[in-house]
Amino acid sequence: MTADIVIRNARPMGGEPVDLIIRDGRFSSGGARPTQEIGATGYVALPGLVEAHTHLDKTLIGMDWFENRVGPNRNDRILADRKAKRDLGIDARRQSARQVLQTLKYGVLHIRSHVDVDTEIGIANIEGVLETREALRDLVDIQVVAFPQSGMLPREGTLDLMDAAMRAGADIVGGIDPATIERDPVRHLDAIFALAELYGKPIDIHLHELGELGAFCLELIIERTRALSMQGRVMVSHAYCLGMLEPTRQQALIAALAAEQIAIMTVGSPAAPALPLRLMRQSGVAVASGSDGIQGTWEPWGNGDMLERAKYLAQRNGMTNDADLAETARICTFGGAGGIGLSGYGLSEGDFGDLVLVPARTLAEAVAVTPQSRTVIRRGRVLVRDGVAATDLPSID
Amino acid sequence: MTADIVIRNARPMGGEPVDLIIRDGRFSSGGARPTQEIGATGYVALPGLVEAHTHLDKTLIGMDWFENRVGPNRNDRILADRKAKRDLGIDARRQSARQVLQTLKYGVLHIRSHVDVDTEIGIANIEGVLETREALRDLVDIQVVAFPQSGMLPREGTLDLMDAAMRAGADIVGGIDPATIERDPVRHLDAIFALAELYGKPIDIHLHELGELGAFCLELIIERTRALSMQGRVMVSHAYCLGMLEPTRQQALIAALAAEQIAIMTVGSPAAPALPLRLMRQSGVAVASGSDGIQGTWEPWGNGDMLERAKYLAQRNGMTNDADLAETARICTFGGAGGIGLSGYGLSEGDFGDLVLVPARTLAEAVAVTPQSRTVIRRGRVLVRDGVAATDLPSID
Repeated sequence: MTADIVIRNARPMGGEPVDLIIRDGRFSSGGARPTQEIGATGYVALPGLVEAHTHLDKTLIGMDWFENRVGPNRNDRILADRKAKRDLGIDARRQSARQVLQTLKYGVLHIRSHVDVDTEIGIANIEGVLETREALRDLVDIQVVAFPQSGMLPREGTLDLMDAAMRAGADIVGGIDPATIERDPVRHLDAIFALAELYGKPIDIHLHELGELGAFCLELIIERTRALSMQGRVMVSHAYCLGMLEPTRQQALIAALAAEQIAIMTVGSPAAPALPLRLMRQSGVAVASGSDGIQGTWEPWGNGDMLERAKYLAQRNGMTNDADLAETARICTFGGAGGIGLSGYGLSEGDFGDLVLVPARTLAEAVAVTPQSRTVIRRGRVLVRDGVAATDLPSID
Repeated sequence: MTADIVIRNARPMGGEPVDLIIRDGRFSSGGARPTQEIGATGYVALPGLVEAHTHLDKTLIGMDWFENRVGPNRNDRILADRKAKRDLGIDARRQSARQVLQTLKYGVLHIRSHVDVDTEIGIANIEGVLETREALRDLVDIQVVAFPQSGMLPREGTLDLMDAAMRAGADIVGGIDPATIERDPVRHLDAIFALAELYGKPIDIHLHELGELGAFCLELIIERTRALSMQGRVMVSHAYCLGMLEPTRQQALIAALAAEQIAIMTVGSPAAPALPLRLMRQSGVAVASGSDGIQGTWEPWGNGDMLERAKYLAQRNGMTNDADLAETARICTFGGAGGIGLSGYGLSEGDFGDLVLVPARTLAEAVAVTPQSRTVIRRGRVLVRDGVAATDLPSID
């Protein structure tokens, strides 16, 4: 049990200054006997940033520089990725912990990570990230998606490994391009929905497929979500196709996603089609965001800062005014929380006492300038103070 | 005259470690009596970063937060920009100096800035930025483009002001969307080429026009460059149209740009069409890059770091391998230098003794991770040491 704490004059999501009280680990309207007080004049307060899509087992943070000679296609990258796992001996436990501790200083308190399951590494990476989840459970919430990165149907034995991953403690069943990688969209989707039903778990599908092919796979996902009453428990990651359709087709598909409460995760990649964020919001589709891989074999950059991600989303969509930036900040907080199914999330009475204080005059400035010197509080406990760890962090190496 | 200096074990553009000697302000192969030695083991050395396109008179760095309620169209933004100049009293001298000193710490030693000329502010911004150029001339090279942001033909008197700007000391004649803003592409281009001829100065044209309209305007620019023998003295900024054409049309236009030595400046905006960087390089077109506006009414973000810009270029173009990142680093150094016509630029004997040391294992890491703690040397004088000013900087406020 942590002491009660009061945060003075913080501006929740850039609004009017208020005192935020955390009592017994939750926001409270009063009655606390605060033993700690934090002055937050000049700070915007956000609930914990939500990383809704990353690959904790793939980062090379702290390792030797990986000279990337990989070709431009997704299959080139999958092969390079699997080879790197073999050759570099990437330790999923250690690497996932390194990324989590790095992003903690930005205020990332909730992470959904896809974790590779394949016939070479089996479920070792799942076990490694689950170890990190346990070791860092007082700092960050981690959801583990069993992810068949190298393909499931074409590589015999992978489906059994997916099953083993769920038994080992994975939280979510992952899927991957049902047509272009799996070569059989119906069989792939039937298999992962069956697994999700068997374990009573949600689904999160990587869908990079473009244009009408992607739209068709999205329809198959919508049909299965409806048939199995999985509303609110399915996320589609990337879904570039939504940015590539005729307007009427796009609107109809987005309405169907909303009806089945299927969430969409977009990283706002500058090199991929932009999703119609405004239309999705107006239509009631939950939109979350994530960093995708950070400093790995897929892409050499990335820091996992979900406020910087909000900036990327705005930049990709040509959104430059303050209201737009507030919307992308919302996607990286409340949108993510809705998308990955968090409860007790927010800055209101009764919500978990988690927040990030960002030195900024407005929420838009927090997004546009992404000040680094943040204060991070979880369940009323100060983890990071002005960018510096304020508590002993577990040793991970 | 500065003392001779030797930089030990730096890796020029990520290559093998060498000692770099600067004697009498230029790189030398020896014969120096170094009075200062800098250990650069673990550092990549680049020549001074080149900011080939910014708007020094528009940044709001250090001013009150500007609440951006501006609409999404270019004309909305031009109106908001002009209104802000009136309402906020943006001091072009002070603001330009703030941006220059901020970007100096990243190693930006050469800047081409477009500076507004219009019937409301006249040439006051030109005069302000010219003052900064003079005040900071021992730190940074600045080129001033007389830029008719609000339009020239539709706003009577602007052409005379452009002429006045050139007489006041502007280095380059600027142009703007000859069709969509100027409404008369031939007359606009004839006017600015005539001005350039009159003063014997280069040209730099903002060309946002899309698809075939942009391509047509580009043809008009090519024709005039050829007719007036302006080869090597014309830059087209943005040129989105190059990313929107049929392949054969695109190739032909790029070949024509190469033939007339017309340089292209691209910022790699995530919300605009990506240019075919590889094809342009193969065809021999000089490609430069820039930050465009930083923290102004047009866009709320930006820090002016041209290594981060190299990352943006790579991200926009889906370039993730080490060779690709080296190429975008080249665009932000040698490409920019060629594009804006610098002489004595580079890390070879006889070149000006300017360089940036970046703590990184490879050039690709310098781009992907953009370490901030850099050392910046100009003409053999250490201006910034590990991210901290190493010399007294002029007072600017």
